[in-house]
Amino acid sequence: MATLSDNKNDPLIIFTPSGKRGRFAKGTPILEAARALGVNIDSVCGGRGICGRCQIEPSFGEFAKHAITSTSENISPFGAKEERYKNKFGLADLRRLSCSAQIEGDIVIDVPPESEMHKQIVRKQADERDIILNPCIRLYYIEVEEPDMHNPKGDLERVYEAIAAQWNLDIADCDLHILPILQKALRKGQWKITVAIYNDKHIIAVWPELQDKLYGLAVDIGSTTIACHLTNMQTGDVVAASGIMNPQIRFGEDLMSRVSYVMMNPGGDQEMTKAVREAINTLIEQVCEEAEITKDVVLDAVFVGNPVMHHLFLGIDPTELGGAPFALAAGSAQSFKASDIDISIASGGRVYILPCIAGHVGADTAGVVLSEAPFNNEEITLLVDVGTNAEIVLGNKDKLVAASSPTGPAFEGAEISSGQRAAPGAIERVRIDKETLEPRFRIIGSETWSDEEGFAKEVENIGVTGICGSGIIEIIAQMYLAGIITQDGVIDGTLAQKSNRILQDGRTFSYLVHEGEVTVKVTQNDVRAIQLAKSALYAGCKLLMEKLGVNAVDKIKLAGAFGTHIDTKYALILGMIPDCQLENVIAAGNAAGTGARIALLNKDTRQEIEDVVEKIEKIETAVEPRFQEHFIAAMGIPNSADEFQILRNNVDMPKFVISSAQSGQKEAGSKRKRRANRRGSA
Amino acid sequence: MATLSDNKNDPLIIFTPSGKRGRFAKGTPILEAARALGVNIDSVCGGRGICGRCQIEPSFGEFAKHAITSTSENISPFGAKEERYKNKFGLADLRRLSCSAQIEGDIVIDVPPESEMHKQIVRKQADERDIILNPCIRLYYIEVEEPDMHNPKGDLERVYEAIAAQWNLDIADCDLHILPILQKALRKGQWKITVAIYNDKHIIAVWPELQDKLYGLAVDIGSTTIACHLTNMQTGDVVAASGIMNPQIRFGEDLMSRVSYVMMNPGGDQEMTKAVREAINTLIEQVCEEAEITKDVVLDAVFVGNPVMHHLFLGIDPTELGGAPFALAAGSAQSFKASDIDISIASGGRVYILPCIAGHVGADTAGVVLSEAPFNNEEITLLVDVGTNAEIVLGNKDKLVAASSPTGPAFEGAEISSGQRAAPGAIERVRIDKETLEPRFRIIGSETWSDEEGFAKEVENIGVTGICGSGIIEIIAQMYLAGIITQDGVIDGTLAQKSNRILQDGRTFSYLVHEGEVTVKVTQNDVRAIQLAKSALYAGCKLLMEKLGVNAVDKIKLAGAFGTHIDTKYALILGMIPDCQLENVIAAGNAAGTGARIALLNKDTRQEIEDVVEKIEKIETAVEPRFQEHFIAAMGIPNSADEFQILRNNVDMPKFVISSAQSGQKEAGSKRKRRANRRGSA
Repeated sequence: MATLSDNKNDPLIIFTPSGKRGRFAKGTPILEAARALGVNIDSVCGGRGICGRCQIEPSFGEFAKHAITSTSENISPFGAKEERYKNKFGLADLRRLSCSAQIEGDIVIDVPPESEMHKQIVRKQADERDIILNPCIRLYYIEVEEPDMHNPKGDLERVYEAIAAQWNLDIADCDLHILPILQKALRKGQWKITVAIYNDKHIIAVWPELQDKLYGLAVDIGSTTIACHLTNMQTGDVVAASGIMNPQIRFGEDLMSRVSYVMMNPGGDQEMTKAVREAINTLIEQVCEEAEITKDVVLDAVFVGNPVMHHLFLGIDPTELGGAPFALAAGSAQSFKASDIDISIASGGRVYILPCIAGHVGADTAGVVLSEAPFNNEEITLLVDVGTNAEIVLGNKDKLVAASSPTGPAFEGAEISSGQRAAPGAIERVRIDKETLEPRFRIIGSETWSDEEGFAKEVENIGVTGICGSGIIEIIAQMYLAGIITQDGVIDGTLAQKSNRILQDGRTFSYLVHEGEVTVKVTQNDVRAIQLAKSALYAGCKLLMEKLGVNAVDKIKLAGAFGTHIDTKYALILGMIPDCQLENVIAAGNAAGTGARIALLNKDTRQEIEDVVEKIEKIETAVEPRFQEHFIAAMGIPNSADEFQILRNNVDMPKFVISSAQSGQKEAGSKRKRRANRRGSA
Repeated sequence: MATLSDNKNDPLIIFTPSGKRGRFAKGTPILEAARALGVNIDSVCGGRGICGRCQIEPSFGEFAKHAITSTSENISPFGAKEERYKNKFGLADLRRLSCSAQIEGDIVIDVPPESEMHKQIVRKQADERDIILNPCIRLYYIEVEEPDMHNPKGDLERVYEAIAAQWNLDIADCDLHILPILQKALRKGQWKITVAIYNDKHIIAVWPELQDKLYGLAVDIGSTTIACHLTNMQTGDVVAASGIMNPQIRFGEDLMSRVSYVMMNPGGDQEMTKAVREAINTLIEQVCEEAEITKDVVLDAVFVGNPVMHHLFLGIDPTELGGAPFALAAGSAQSFKASDIDISIASGGRVYILPCIAGHVGADTAGVVLSEAPFNNEEITLLVDVGTNAEIVLGNKDKLVAASSPTGPAFEGAEISSGQRAAPGAIERVRIDKETLEPRFRIIGSETWSDEEGFAKEVENIGVTGICGSGIIEIIAQMYLAGIITQDGVIDGTLAQKSNRILQDGRTFSYLVHEGEVTVKVTQNDVRAIQLAKSALYAGCKLLMEKLGVNAVDKIKLAGAFGTHIDTKYALILGMIPDCQLENVIAAGNAAGTGARIALLNKDTRQEIEDVVEKIEKIETAVEPRFQEHFIAAMGIPNSADEFQILRNNVDMPKFVISSAQSGQKEAGSKRKRRANRRGSA
C-alpha cells in the first residue's frame, strides 16, 4: 500500500466529495493513495483493471479553496489496463480506473457515488437514516499459485494464501460444497477465480475468473402476503420485487386459526412450514427471472415475520404461541445456511432472520424498529403495525417499550359483516352528506366516485363487493361526523324517519351503503367490533406512554398496509391512536420489509437491532390491569364538539391540524387529559 | 464456588492421588473444594446428585505423611441426595457423592479414576503417550426458568441463561434442528434438560431430563476395508468395533483404478462417494446395535483415510490425484455437520477429518503421526504405513519429513502370480529347509503347519488358495536364506537338479510351494515385483533420512495390516526398511484408526496434529533424483555373509538383534554404509 509523504515537493492529491487529502510520491496509483487516506474506493479484482469498480474522475482547473492547480498532465496518460477495460466494457469519457491511473502532480479526484465501497443509499424521507452499504458477503477476485510437486499444498490452502496475500483476510474455513467444485473452477479460470466470503471468514461460493454479480433477498413473511425484494448487494438497488399469497391461508385465515390447525392436526406445522418455504422459493424464481439473473449469485437472504410466521418458517411448532405465557421457542436472531431450511438460493447462500421481541411482537416489528430507527432519535416516536394484532413500539434513543394490543382482525375487514380483504371492488373511500345522510364512495380498482359519471360502468366491470379495512375506519368516522352514530357508538335509530339508509335489524339499526349484487351495510355489531379494536389499540399506546412516562408523542409512524391505505385523520377522529400533529402521523409503508433490506445491506445493523431488541422493555398487556382501564375508557368516540368541528366542515383539507395550538408535550398533554375526561364520561 | 481458607482452624482436605490440599470452612461440599483446588471431578448434572459422576471415596485413618487424622466423623453423614441416588442407581459401599458430602473435619478423599473429568486413558505400549479425555462435545444438565408473561424471553434464550449461570459457558448459537424440538423437551423434562455443547459454544443436541450417554466414532476409511470404533466419550472405552469391505472395490481394486474409473466414467466419483457413505452408515448401524445404543447419542465422528479415500468421502472428484502434480483439492482438516455428508449419527452430530499431508500422504498418515507422536520424542522414529503406496514419516520433536514411495500393490499380494488378499486359505507363514528345499507353511484360518498331522483335513475345510502379502515377504526371504534366490534376486535354476520344487518357466525358474486345487508357486516375476516394491520403500526411507540429515533411525513403527502381519525380521532381511535394532521395529497396529480415536477423545489434539502437519516437510519422491539412485542401489538383497548368518541358523528366535553392537547412530550409520556398499556392488 502507498504511504503518505511528508515531502512538500511530492504532489498533493485531494479526493472529493470527502475532502481527504495527502501527498504521495509520483507514480502512486490513485487507488492506493485513496486507501492510504481512508477513501474507500470499491474493487472486486484487487486493482487488476478488470472489474471496473474503482472508476474515478479527475477534476481539472484551479482550486483556489485548496490552493492547487489540477491539470491533465498531473495524472498519468490512459494506460493499457484502461484501454483493455474500455474496449471490453466501455468507460465514460472523463472516467479513469484508479488502479491504473497514477499521480503525476497535484490533482483533484472526484469519487463518484457508485465507486464508493461503503456507498450511502439515500432514503426518501428526511427523518430516515441512510443505509451504508456494507453487506456481510463480498466478492473477491484472486490469482492463485499453481500446484507444484515441490510444494504439495492443497488447492484450497493455496486459495487461502492468495486471499491472505491479496486481500489481507484470514480465512477460517470453507463450505463443504466448495470442495467438489474448487479444483474445476481453478483450472477453468486458469488459476484466477472469484470467491464470495461471508463475514470475512468463510468461503461460501467460488466461480472461475472474475464474477461481478452479488444479490440478496429481503423477505417479509406476512400472514396474508409474502413480499420479496431482490437487491443488488453492490449498489443497494432493488432490482425486482414481487409478492405472493401466503399459501398457509388454506390452513387458516388468521394467525390463531393456523395455530389451532396445528393443535387439531398433529404434523400440521410441518405442512405449513413446507407450504411457506415452497411459496418463498416460487417468489425467488419470479424475482430472479424478472431481474434476469441466476440463483447462484443470490447469496444472502434476510427474513422478517410475526412470531407465528417466524416459527413456521423455521420449522417450529407454534402451539406455545397460542396460549399464555406465549413463550417463543427462540427469540434471538438466527443465522444459518439457506440449504438448512430448503430455501433455494446459491448453494452456499446464507439466511438471517431478525430477532423477535416477544411472544406477540415479532421479527417484523424488529424490522420496523430497524427501519424507523427511533433508537437514534431524541423525539418520542410511536410505531404502530396493525395486523391481526397491533404491535406497538414507543420511545427514543434513551428507552424503547413494546407491546402487542389484541385488536383482533377487524381493522383488516374481518369480523365485519360486509368486510373483505383489500381487493378490487372493496369500498375504500366514503363521504356521507350530513344533511341527506347519502353516501358517496370509491372502490379499489377505480378512480371514479359513486356519484360521478361512469361509475355504473365501473360497477359492471369490477363490482362493489364489500368494505376493506381502511374503508370501514373511514365510513364509521364519517357516520360519526354525520351524526349517524353517537359518541358511544350507537347507530341512531331515530334517523330512520329522515333517511331510508337507516335500517332496523331487530333491536339495533344499520346503515345501508350500497345496494346491488352485494348489499353493503354497516351494522351495529360492525361499529362495536371497530370500537373494540380501536380501544385496544389506543389502550396499548396509552399503556406504553405510561410505562415510558410521557404524556404525548412527537411522531406516529403507521407501518404496513394499514398505515399505507388509511386516511390518518380518521384514525385520529375515531381515537385509534394518541393525539399528534396530523402532519407528524406518517405512513411508513412496508417498514418491516425495509428493515429486512437494511439488515441485508449492512451487516453492522444486524448486531445493532439485536442489541436494541435485547434492551426493549416488553410489556404484556394481558397482565397489566391499567390496560383494561384504558381499554374501557377508550371505547367511546372522542367528543366532536370542539377540535373536530372543523373536520365536520372540511374533511378533505390536505394537512389538517387537530389542535390549533402549537404542537408540544405540555399542550398535547393537556389535550390528552381533556379527551380522557370525555371518554370517562362517555 | 468454595474459597480456600487461611484459617488454620478450618479443616484440611487432601485429595488423592493428586495430593492437592487446602483448608475450607466446615460444611463445604467436597465437589466445590475439589474445584477450588483444581481437582477436576466430573459432573453432568452440576451437583444436583442425579448423575452420580462425582463419586469419591473418603480414606480414614492416620496419615502421618500428611500429618492429619481422617475419621468418619469428619465427613457429613449420608444425605438425602445420596440416599435417593443409591436407591435408584446403587452406590458402592464406601462411595459418596462429592456434590452432597460435606467437609466436617480433616479428611483424605480419594478420587477414583472414573470420576476424573480429564481421565487419562492409558495405552498399552510404554512409548505411547496416554490420551487425556477432553472431547469437543460435552453434556450439560440444566434447570431452566419457566416462561412468564412478565418476562417474555424465548425458551432458547432462557436455556442460554441457564447454561451461563449453571455452567459458566457463553453460548453463541444453536443448531437449527434444535429449534423445533426444544420446547417439547423443556416441557417433557419439566424445565430440566440435558444439552450437548460443541466447542463450548454451540448447542447441538437436547434431551428432556438427565441424559448421560455420549458416544463417538473413529473411522478409518481404507481402500479395502473401512474400520469403525464406537467409543464411549465419557470413559474413552471402545464399546464396539466393526469393519466392512469398502464397496468402492467394485469400481476398482486399488486406488489408481478407482481414479481411472472416474476419468472414464463421468459422475463415477459421485457413485463412489455414495457407496462409501452408505457403507459407513451400515457400519454405524452395526456398532450401535452391538453396543445397544441409539444413534441419537452418537454425536461426534472422526475420519481418516488416504487422499483418494478422503476426497471420495468428502464428495471430491479425485482425478487431480491421479497425475502430476497430484494436487489435493483440500489438505487442511475439515469440520462440519454429519448431515452435510449424509452420515447418520445424531441430527446435530459433527464430523472431523484429519488433515492430509500431501497428494500421496493422507489423513490416514496424519492419524499414524498423531497416534505415534514422534513430534513429542527425542528419538528418531520412522513411521511406515504400507498400502498401495508406502507412506513414510521420519523425524522427532525437532523436525518431521514425509514422503510416499511408489511401492505398488505387491506388498498386498497384488501383481504376484499366486498373490491374494489376506483371507482364509492364504499362505502366511513359510519355512524352507535349506538342505532339501522342501517348504512347510501355515495358512490363514489354521494353526497347523503343512507338515503336521491334520493339515490335510484343514486343507479340505479351508483350502490353500494363494499367498498373502506378508506370506510373500516371508517366502522370498526364506528362499533367499535357503539359497534358492541369489543376492540379486535370481531364482537359481541349477537347483532344479537337486529339487523338483524348482520349475523352469521358459528362460526363468519358479519355486513350487504347494500343489492342490490351486498350484501355489513363486515365479521370477514375483521376486522382481517384490524387489521393486521393497527397493522403493527402502529408497523412500533413505531419502527421508538424507533430508533429515541422519544416518540411522532409533525406532521403526510399521502401521497397518502390513506391520501387524509381517514378521519384521524378514523385512530387515530383504532390506525393505533401514537397519534398526529388531526389538525397536514395532508393529503399530491400526495406528491411523488410533489417531482418529485420539482426535475424537481430545479436542486439543486436533489443533496439535494440524500444526504438526503444517510443519512437516513434504518430499515428492518423483522429483528427487536421489530417490532414483537409492532405488537402483536397493534392488538387491543385502549380503547374508555376516550379520544374517545367525538368522540362517535360527530364524525363529524371538528377539533377534541384527547387529551385536549396541544400537546407536554412529554404529548404525557405519552399518548402513556397509550395506549400501554391498548393494552398490550387487
